[in-house]
Amino acid sequence: MPKDMSHSVSIFERRESAARSYCRGMPATFATAQGSEITDEAGKTWIDFLAGCSSLNYGHNDPDMKAALIEHISNDGLAHGLDLHTDTKAAFLEAFESHILEPRDMDHRVMFTGPTGANAVEAAMKIARKVTGRTNIIAFTNGFHGVTTGALSATGNGYHRGGAGTSLNGVTRMPFDNYFPGETNTAEFLEAMLKDQSGGVDAPAAILLETVQGEGGLNAASPEWVRHIAKLAKDNGALLIIDDIQAGCGRCGTFFSFEDMGVTPDIVTMAKSVSGFGLPMAMVLVKPDYDIFGPAEHNGTFRGNTHAFVTARVAIEKFWSNDAFQRELSEKAQIVHDALADLAAMVPDAHLKGRGLMQGVDVISGDLASEICARAYEKGLIIETSGSEDQVIKVLAPLTTPTDTLRKGLNILLDAANDVLTGTNKIAAE
Amino acid sequence: MPKDMSHSVSIFERRESAARSYCRGMPATFATAQGSEITDEAGKTWIDFLAGCSSLNYGHNDPDMKAALIEHISNDGLAHGLDLHTDTKAAFLEAFESHILEPRDMDHRVMFTGPTGANAVEAAMKIARKVTGRTNIIAFTNGFHGVTTGALSATGNGYHRGGAGTSLNGVTRMPFDNYFPGETNTAEFLEAMLKDQSGGVDAPAAILLETVQGEGGLNAASPEWVRHIAKLAKDNGALLIIDDIQAGCGRCGTFFSFEDMGVTPDIVTMAKSVSGFGLPMAMVLVKPDYDIFGPAEHNGTFRGNTHAFVTARVAIEKFWSNDAFQRELSEKAQIVHDALADLAAMVPDAHLKGRGLMQGVDVISGDLASEICARAYEKGLIIETSGSEDQVIKVLAPLTTPTDTLRKGLNILLDAANDVLTGTNKIAAE
Amino acid sequence: MPKDMSHSVSIFERRESAARSYCRGMPATFATAQGSEITDEAGKTWIDFLAGCSSLNYGHNDPDMKAALIEHISNDGLAHGLDLHTDTKAAFLEAFESHILEPRDMDHRVMFTGPTGANAVEAAMKIARKVTGRTNIIAFTNGFHGVTTGALSATGNGYHRGGAGTSLNGVTRMPFDNYFPGETNTAEFLEAMLKDQSGGVDAPAAILLETVQGEGGLNAASPEWVRHIAKLAKDNGALLIIDDIQAGCGRCGTFFSFEDMGVTPDIVTMAKSVSGFGLPMAMVLVKPDYDIFGPAEHNGTFRGNTHAFVTARVAIEKFWSNDAFQRELSEKAQIVHDALADLAAMVPDAHLKGRGLMQGVDVISGDLASEICARAYEKGLIIETSGSEDQVIKVLAPLTTPTDTLRKGLNILLDAANDVLTGTNKIAAE
Amino acid sequence: MPKDMSHSVSIFERRESAARSYCRGMPATFATAQGSEITDEAGKTWIDFLAGCSSLNYGHNDPDMKAALIEHISNDGLAHGLDLHTDTKAAFLEAFESHILEPRDMDHRVMFTGPTGANAVEAAMKIARKVTGRTNIIAFTNGFHGVTTGALSATGNGYHRGGAGTSLNGVTRMPFDNYFPGETNTAEFLEAMLKDQSGGVDAPAAILLETVQGEGGLNAASPEWVRHIAKLAKDNGALLIIDDIQAGCGRCGTFFSFEDMGVTPDIVTMAKSVSGFGLPMAMVLVKPDYDIFGPAEHNGTFRGNTHAFVTARVAIEKFWSNDAFQRELSEKAQIVHDALADLAAMVPDAHLKGRGLMQGVDVISGDLASEICARAYEKGLIIETSGSEDQVIKVLAPLTTPTDTLRKGLNILLDAANDVLTGTNKIAAE
Repeated sequence: MPKDMSHSVSIFERRESAARSYCRGMPATFATAQGSEITDEAGKTWIDFLAGCSSLNYGHNDPDMKAALIEHISNDGLAHGLDLHTDTKAAFLEAFESHILEPRDMDHRVMFTGPTGANAVEAAMKIARKVTGRTNIIAFTNGFHGVTTGALSATGNGYHRGGAGTSLNGVTRMPFDNYFPGETNTAEFLEAMLKDQSGGVDAPAAILLETVQGEGGLNAASPEWVRHIAKLAKDNGALLIIDDIQAGCGRCGTFFSFEDMGVTPDIVTMAKSVSGFGLPMAMVLVKPDYDIFGPAEHNGTFRGNTHAFVTARVAIEKFWSNDAFQRELSEKAQIVHDALADLAAMVPDAHLKGRGLMQGVDVISGDLASEICARAYEKGLIIETSGSEDQVIKVLAPLTTPTDTLRKGLNILLDAANDVLTGTNKIAAE
Repeated sequence: MPKDMSHSVSIFERRESAARSYCRGMPATFATAQGSEITDEAGKTWIDFLAGCSSLNYGHNDPDMKAALIEHISNDGLAHGLDLHTDTKAAFLEAFESHILEPRDMDHRVMFTGPTGANAVEAAMKIARKVTGRTNIIAFTNGFHGVTTGALSATGNGYHRGGAGTSLNGVTRMPFDNYFPGETNTAEFLEAMLKDQSGGVDAPAAILLETVQGEGGLNAASPEWVRHIAKLAKDNGALLIIDDIQAGCGRCGTFFSFEDMGVTPDIVTMAKSVSGFGLPMAMVLVKPDYDIFGPAEHNGTFRGNTHAFVTARVAIEKFWSNDAFQRELSEKAQIVHDALADLAAMVPDAHLKGRGLMQGVDVISGDLASEICARAYEKGLIIETSGSEDQVIKVLAPLTTPTDTLRKGLNILLDAANDVLTGTNKIAAE
Repeated sequence: MPKDMSHSVSIFERRESAARSYCRGMPATFATAQGSEITDEAGKTWIDFLAGCSSLNYGHNDPDMKAALIEHISNDGLAHGLDLHTDTKAAFLEAFESHILEPRDMDHRVMFTGPTGANAVEAAMKIARKVTGRTNIIAFTNGFHGVTTGALSATGNGYHRGGAGTSLNGVTRMPFDNYFPGETNTAEFLEAMLKDQSGGVDAPAAILLETVQGEGGLNAASPEWVRHIAKLAKDNGALLIIDDIQAGCGRCGTFFSFEDMGVTPDIVTMAKSVSGFGLPMAMVLVKPDYDIFGPAEHNGTFRGNTHAFVTARVAIEKFWSNDAFQRELSEKAQIVHDALADLAAMVPDAHLKGRGLMQGVDVISGDLASEICARAYEKGLIIETSGSEDQVIKVLAPLTTPTDTLRKGLNILLDAANDVLTGTNKIAAE
Repeated sequence: MPKDMSHSVSIFERRESAARSYCRGMPATFATAQGSEITDEAGKTWIDFLAGCSSLNYGHNDPDMKAALIEHISNDGLAHGLDLHTDTKAAFLEAFESHILEPRDMDHRVMFTGPTGANAVEAAMKIARKVTGRTNIIAFTNGFHGVTTGALSATGNGYHRGGAGTSLNGVTRMPFDNYFPGETNTAEFLEAMLKDQSGGVDAPAAILLETVQGEGGLNAASPEWVRHIAKLAKDNGALLIIDDIQAGCGRCGTFFSFEDMGVTPDIVTMAKSVSGFGLPMAMVLVKPDYDIFGPAEHNGTFRGNTHAFVTARVAIEKFWSNDAFQRELSEKAQIVHDALADLAAMVPDAHLKGRGLMQGVDVISGDLASEICARAYEKGLIIETSGSEDQVIKVLAPLTTPTDTLRKGLNILLDAANDVLTGTNKIAAE
């Protein structure tokens, strides 16, 4: 038996793969959570500004979803329904149609894919290729779309790409909005390359983008740029796929991240907060004309996670049946913005990134960002970095975080930054 | 608004993607389920011999798992934990170590991947490629490993492959055991191709197989063949990956499908019934030497589906802490075998397939198999086909199905077959 | 300046790439050649049983081709004509039509590709993919089709494949005729895989084969097998491509290697001896229905090697305007066969390979084969090995070799074998 | 027999593939050529400003090469030598070393590849991938590197790419120098993408470029840009490959197109005019450290086109043993420049492209350029277009063209342009 199989080391060291990650910087063993707070086995509580990477937009264990789920389970409601019709799926679809799709004039169909964001992206890429008969998909610098082979080919991150063990094909990489600040408009760049008969960029099946690149460093595309890209997609016979897995479900201040931009994507990928409760669920919204997969042509066992349908329905009905919640988001976004502006002012050249409740600060150095987050963790706040060098401190608080808790968390962040910048954290450690 | 957006058609017709599938042959709207039975909104109950495609091996809403899950939710246990340490994950790992891995002398590490089987397969393929620095993976005729791009390249099914919209690379296809009955041993065939310096089969990163091909028609590999393949993998510097997603978790009569075969795979992929309750969960077991992914190199949001850890732990403790359950499986397998032998006797050239509680009958014709399943559905039994032509009627009853229910279900199947073969079903329909 | 740039080493050591090969075993510097004999700078002469790897089927410096070429050059005939019309190209096409295509009822068009066999194979693969809209091409164990990326993907040799530096896609490898002597017919094997809807072999654009695998060890397909493969191609909507680069131009006893087999390939690739004089020239014969490339869609500078057209025309007119030459080939093949049978009798388990003037002996060991060839070189015969382990001694004498010279060369080979098998060569070396 | 097999249509219509191209716009059947003039069967003579697409830089049938070649053939010199040592290859290598490599301080080795430019490019790409263990190769908009699968993946032209019938992988496309006139420096763009850890551009094996894009529209890179690219290659561990197939052999005014730029490529590909006589020959120059192919790892039958070695040696000795020829080129380039400036002045927005004896005029419209070339053909001048829309009239006169002939040809071009712009050609046609 290998040495670390000895029971003197923790079960995680003994038996969990080295691929585990978040636990390395936040080594507590967590046990319970409510709203925006999470508590470990020993009873220590943290404010949670990570929110399951935006998969807990409505906080932990929302009481209404919780009650509905317990009732469902107690009544022997289905847990798993393959892609059979179930009453819970019907109820979710009806809520999603009434409160989300119809008010936004979207006639999209809902395809339930395997319950991971990557699976939704894979399905979206396959649809676009099948619809157009083309292979090439345009994706952008710093885009993140998952790590299964198809999705990974569209993901920019070199560390993840290196894990493929094979070459990643079928995607042309283009610079995202504002990649060269003050210089060439990157949509014009793409336009020129696509128009050039010898440009070497094959006719695209799709253009795939996030309006705010969550993992890529909170780069927020301007509405003008997104509209330009949408026009290029249309002019070139390509489908526009918006990956709203992280930026959707209210994270940017509206249900979809793109809804104030004047574009209607042909395909939208959703996951993370769509179940509302942190349960695995993913889906692809697709315009009826492009809903061309045959039965089970893209399939998977867990497409009918019925527990998730229950909580997802409650989430839609509770938060999106009128505009009250959306108005709150706007106020909270301002609170975050103001605090982050203070943080940015503390670090030379630092600047704000993102929009809505998906904001952060680029502190230029990945080491500095990590140190600040580590200090915040010590002080009772869970918060993470993003960006190509992990140089962006990213606030992903639950959208439902009470204003007081939000301010409290932001204050911990500012204190942590101050500690690091003044060296207090190191003195404390001695 | 397109015509079928009108509210006079069902919400599924209006809004669910055409990719939906099982619901087409079983159009009821299901609501509740207990054990081996499932009930629709109208109160009609079916015996379930599909069991979520083997993702409900312990039946629907097992009372112990149900109680534990409700307790967990009631106590505000985490729903979603990214890959943080949680008490529930620790408890699952400890149970899995004590009752599964240690008794079988397996020092594998557990990698929690995105909660779909395809994601586990993608991770396994990436690991093998990274470990060996090679690209080529050997997979077999009629293998099914999922439909994301990497997994799909290993899947044999032409209908699914056609959905890729691009060419599927990096896999060499070889004939499964007994592909040419009475002729060349296909392991010797593979051996010859691999040994031949001009054979054109690049040195493999892995050999990937299911010991029983669930989707491929219940083709069961012999222990000798699996051992031969394992030796070829070792001799050629390739990893042996056994995809136990459908055949594992007791389905073949032992926890792993391969455990009586004298082989220890380098990597095992698991999903479907690993949560025990139908909740999305997948994992990769990997020998410590090959556990080489860096932190989050293969990542995903839903790797910490804490609800699933709760039920998965109960499943392991309840069914696998001693050999009582395994002994039951053997008896039930005999019951299934006997009934299916009767069925096979009714159809010329029909023959039995599979092993354990993963048996079926190849009735030669896909149309006939479908007709029999449709008739069974009318009579109160949910059962499905598999195989390249959907010609195999497949019994995937929950492993926990009481003997009486099992016999009752099998009798319905026999009756349905009789109806179809005598034309009674058509007379009834007139 | 690196050490070996010093002028004390030969210009080849100093300046020619390490990729050079034949010169390593035959280090003489050759200067002149006539018929079946080749002479070095020092005046030593060898009988040439390599014949430019079958690119000198009519021997060196055939007097009629030589005269025509000198006249053409003297008259300022074009050397290079891109793909313009030239009088010499017209004359070649007319000769090829009259003496080759029409008598064999072939309505194929002639596409002049870049003047390498690999380029012809690349063009053929591209045509098949464009015609069918499919990607997959079936190629065989031990096939050799060239080393540019597309052709290399169809080549079986692992050493060459390893030089790609990238994975080689789009080809499914199948066992050649008689790959498992006495067991499964490999055409039936391919048939089963193609018919199986879950066999994992995508619908093929083409089946690509050599009737005798020159580099692969002189494996000769039976007419029955080739016909079966041709039927499979037709039944599966794939084009049949016969790569006749090495086996064509009379090498197997008829102009095309396949002409007595009862098949008409959709595409034939030709190179090597098509110019008759060793000049670079390659072409693709394609049925009119599949001649679908647009102007210059597959292009290249040297498609109009006018010198080659001159000699190629003479070759066709001189050797193929009646059947006298073909009758000679049959007699010579028997002479070769008899001598090789004697050689085979000298080595345990050795056996004859190939057919026509493309015969050899598998002496089981690559080392033994090399030693025999090296000894033959010392004794005045140039001859090479082939096969996956270089275990086949291959006789590729010019088809025009006079009977006396042929016997003389074969006797040197037998003597060389005897020397090696009795150790005489080593004694001599001491 | 298909209709056009009838002998009433020309042999080219009957039997040559539809892929033929140049002959469509210049339908004469050419027979002889001397220097810069080419004559058809009927005795009509044209000035040749196409020069075999720059493969006849020293004109047709140079008397010294012609004499040497006739002498070689008359003496039964080898025509074809595989990659054996031959006296003619040694003589070529010695001349190339003395007059080309040593004076330019280049210690490169010479690899003789299959005699097409595409084959040299394939070999270069394979070397870079093998040396670095990476797959990705950076190539540029409007680059042209050949149409075999590997080379085609690096070629920008969409028409050629469309002929692949499969997706073309392993290449990242970047904008060439000055792609966005007056905006972002494209080398800085590439630098940013390569430096970005999440930029999605995998670490490159090589950067591959032409200093003047012959097929792509005579886009000439500035020395500063090429130096910047060379530095990026070095900084990123990638090889710099300069494809000098069209721009080399004196075409840009020096033997190599890059020799005044202050860069030393790791690999140079050469073909077209390297034989000096239009005979097929190609080679790769590679720094000794990267000369890592094993014997025959990249092979091919026609690597030893001995006739080409004869003429190539004469070309080197005659034109490059001192600087007289190079000085002439400079004068002729000025003559071409002045005439093309006149042409550009005739067309609104037209502008000059290229450098050395590789200049042209972008007349904005492909139709206009074609019409002018067609009119020039009528008037006795062969000249072609290039560029993504065929909008660039390209002068590729033999470098040896006498000044009078050069002026005469340029005058025909100006007359032709005038005819077209004034409509005279159409009046004439009525």
